[in-house]
Amino acid sequence: MPALKGILETALYVDDLHVSCRFYEDIIGLKPLKKTERLCAYDVNGRSVLLLFRRGGTSDGATAGGDNYIPPHDANGQIHMAFDSSHEAFKEWHDHLISKGIKILSRTDWMRGGHSIYFRDPDGHLIEIAASPGLWPGF
Amino acid sequence: MPALKGILETALYVDDLHVSCRFYEDIIGLKPLKKTERLCAYDVNGRSVLLLFRRGGTSDGATAGGDNYIPPHDANGQIHMAFDSSHEAFKEWHDHLISKGIKILSRTDWMRGGHSIYFRDPDGHLIEIAASPGLWPGF
Repeated sequence: MPALKGILETALYVDDLHVSCRFYEDIIGLKPLKKTERLCAYDVNGRSVLLLFRRGGTSDGATAGGDNYIPPHDANGQIHMAFDSSHEAFKEWHDHLISKGIKILSRTDWMRGGHSIYFRDPDGHLIEIAASPGLWPGF
Repeated sequence: MPALKGILETALYVDDLHVSCRFYEDIIGLKPLKKTERLCAYDVNGRSVLLLFRRGGTSDGATAGGDNYIPPHDANGQIHMAFDSSHEAFKEWHDHLISKGIKILSRTDWMRGGHSIYFRDPDGHLIEIAASPGLWPGF
């Protein structure tokens, strides 16, 4: 079986790129790698890339960089994703989100010692800040 | 702004957990961290966790580990995600997928030197194997 290094790109589908970009830049603090009419790509600490796609913008596929063709993808609903935090930064995240007017929907305390808080982005996606280690075996 | 370590969890929503688990274990080679009636969680090289949720199984929220409550999430459509590969393993991935009867829908060659191949999982999600570095600035 060939090896994998990890997950590189995680995608969310959003109604209004401008609104979502503002959320992920101003509230979550992500740095944009690329912005077009179709997508915004964000660096998450040099380990992961978050892709925000305008809903319907890639449902016929897309060209990217010359002849490159990317097959169709698109989704509706409230997708879940989790950002990885240290235990120290987790406390700051809670206070930071509250200070920005974000409602914390739930907090979980995992049996391995990790913690999570859950909130919604502008499209209702279920976003988690997870304090690791202590979430999953090895994480 | 509090710090993030990366993206910990990436989610896909699937019609048949059994079928999807077989695909991600037998074709992609992922190791399960947890399997329930509601979800399968996979370790991706100790860096990322892939979550497969049974479609509709979390649309009313879920309890997890005692009193822990996870708010509702669910999605329809064909979500995009990318696995990270070395340039060496990328060649093996192409041949491996072909040998397993997976149709490669497209191949892209990025201006920074990276490459990608695209294929569908059993639910039609658009899965990418990306050879990095050379995809994004810093990736």
